[in-house]
Amino acid sequence: MPPSGHGRAAACASAGVRATGPAGGADARAAGPTDGRRYADVGPLATESGAVLPAVRMAYESWGTPNAARDNAVLVLHALTGDAHVVGPAGPDQPTPGWWPGLIGPGAPLDDRWFVVAANVLGGCRGSTGPSSKAPDGRPWGSRFPRITVRDQVRAEAALADQLGLPGWAAVIGGSMGGMRALEWGVMYPERVRRVVAVATTAAASADQIAWATPQLAAIRMDPAFAGGDYYGGPAPLAGMAVARQIAHVTYRSAQELDVRFGRAAQSGEDPTAGGRFAIESYLQYHGAKLAARFDPNSYLRLTESMNLHDIGRGRGGVDAALRRISGALTVAVVDSDRLYTPAEGARLATAPTARPLVTIHSDHGHDGFLVESDQVAEVVRGALAAPA
Amino acid sequence: MPPSGHGRAAACASAGVRATGPAGGADARAAGPTDGRRYADVGPLATESGAVLPAVRMAYESWGTPNAARDNAVLVLHALTGDAHVVGPAGPDQPTPGWWPGLIGPGAPLDDRWFVVAANVLGGCRGSTGPSSKAPDGRPWGSRFPRITVRDQVRAEAALADQLGLPGWAAVIGGSMGGMRALEWGVMYPERVRRVVAVATTAAASADQIAWATPQLAAIRMDPAFAGGDYYGGPAPLAGMAVARQIAHVTYRSAQELDVRFGRAAQSGEDPTAGGRFAIESYLQYHGAKLAARFDPNSYLRLTESMNLHDIGRGRGGVDAALRRISGALTVAVVDSDRLYTPAEGARLATAPTARPLVTIHSDHGHDGFLVESDQVAEVVRGALAAPA
Repeated sequence: MPPSGHGRAAACASAGVRATGPAGGADARAAGPTDGRRYADVGPLATESGAVLPAVRMAYESWGTPNAARDNAVLVLHALTGDAHVVGPAGPDQPTPGWWPGLIGPGAPLDDRWFVVAANVLGGCRGSTGPSSKAPDGRPWGSRFPRITVRDQVRAEAALADQLGLPGWAAVIGGSMGGMRALEWGVMYPERVRRVVAVATTAAASADQIAWATPQLAAIRMDPAFAGGDYYGGPAPLAGMAVARQIAHVTYRSAQELDVRFGRAAQSGEDPTAGGRFAIESYLQYHGAKLAARFDPNSYLRLTESMNLHDIGRGRGGVDAALRRISGALTVAVVDSDRLYTPAEGARLATAPTARPLVTIHSDHGHDGFLVESDQVAEVVRGALAAPA
Repeated sequence: MPPSGHGRAAACASAGVRATGPAGGADARAAGPTDGRRYADVGPLATESGAVLPAVRMAYESWGTPNAARDNAVLVLHALTGDAHVVGPAGPDQPTPGWWPGLIGPGAPLDDRWFVVAANVLGGCRGSTGPSSKAPDGRPWGSRFPRITVRDQVRAEAALADQLGLPGWAAVIGGSMGGMRALEWGVMYPERVRRVVAVATTAAASADQIAWATPQLAAIRMDPAFAGGDYYGGPAPLAGMAVARQIAHVTYRSAQELDVRFGRAAQSGEDPTAGGRFAIESYLQYHGAKLAARFDPNSYLRLTESMNLHDIGRGRGGVDAALRRISGALTVAVVDSDRLYTPAEGARLATAPTARPLVTIHSDHGHDGFLVESDQVAEVVRGALAAPA
């Protein structure tokens, strides 16, 4: 059963709120090895939808040091429910360990030759400005937070790069929603991106991807605790958030994996013929409740909408024309068992003029293979960085 | 947005209630061409879960006339949201036209040589005993309706056949959930089934199928109108029912179809970048609301649970042993683009000793191809009936 009450979603919301408070005003230019999240106030941002966010704050982590030429910077972009914490353990203000272990650090593809930056996405709930952040009137944005696009998110990241004094990236790397931003970086700022690494992603959200998102958005909105999006200070729509995550989680895994791993096994100590659960039901309920305890449903809505709106070809004469704008070397990797972002969608990206040969990650885990198969991802990144840019 | 209020779900519920009332007492033995739904009171039924339904009523339609040998009877079994109305127009008490047009009637595979019976499934909401029917205390069963299995459903259908004076079936035909019952008929009553036709179905629900069902069940139960299942007389959980149907609908169609048919088109007159919907979102919302207006959410829950519990091998030494119990000729058909009940699952069924060569229905429509491609289904049935039994 989905959880009830406010629970740890409050922590996520309060993190967003704190990001706009004076206590978060760390020196945005203090580069070098960090011990956690820093913040940069990057000013106003006019969204594609015509709204204005008057004071955007970006939360980020970094690893390594910029070199004298400042040409060793790499941007790593997280997926829907990720954050700036790419590697490292969980902590008091960090509910999850790093989501790409082995990517950054000694012996990893992004070792101390590189200055690595990872920012929480605009619209998120882990320190960057999002629906749970305070609006100028001191109340959380909530329902007033505008619909944003991947391009808006990338513009906010470009403003962060400006603040950090980074004229360009040796590579911009992302998977899934992070891959969408990596592609938009390559299209929007070709002169600033020497390499794009896009893993398990697509040039434009497909009808199928939007279809899977539709009941997720509906489940959150039908939760009476949602209150139209203005639930801060009260119970959060955790039940709706949990249902949304259950749907998403199935799309993230492969049928084969679920059948091999769970099959028709009963949950331990329960009898499905007598009202008990199958193990697969318990597994999905666990993951639904787990995300609901750490992730702000309004961020989930706005970020999902931004993925639905993702289309690098929009207003640019189509996908092929947009791909031609990318001047940096494009490395595309797909997961062979991915049923959400299919290998065919990656193959289309790999038709870009600057694309290297398509890389296939072998995994039984479906879309989540882009996280699970971190060794293979590390090889993808190693190969991309070794290629001429 | 999902609809609110009670709406036409009341009609479904009241149909269930009426089925247990005295007005529905048609002569169950009045075979021959009918002008609509009839009812048969088949007595008590002890479920596999250990509960007892003291007075089961089965709603059915029939076409044609039993011959003197009573060996021309065919049973047609509907899927999750279907009913006894296999062919024919909608009517005042029948919200949907026939779901397998072209299967029954002059020139169809089931022409007047056959006496065709179709019953609403036990647990349903279109006339047969289900959660919306009155319990002995005069109130709807609601949350008290027991968890039932496909085997319980087939036992109720066998009791109906007894009442109709039909010692056996020339064929038992079903798709999806109806195919599950067709298979159980062949396993439970081999002496009564000369042919089994199983379309777009499986020997046992897979982890993947149970996984897709999990957020559907959760969405209905999280709707505050659900009231633990005892919502009759008040508003029905239509929003939760609509979300469940949205999820199911995506599993029923193929990604390719959705991408070709809808792509990234905006809903007419709406702009997704300005808060409007994509056409695929509108389409799913329409189908969610449409089912919620005609189908009882408690029936949806109990029938979905029965599909999760479906496993012809349970208690019989496994699927292969169960398949060996089928003595009638088994015709299995799959839809090549079905991502819910995969062709591989059909191929497994076709390893049964009495199986004919696997038939593949070609369709872009995914699982729903078993309904959409009615011409191909008609050929499957024609071939099955022509084969020696």
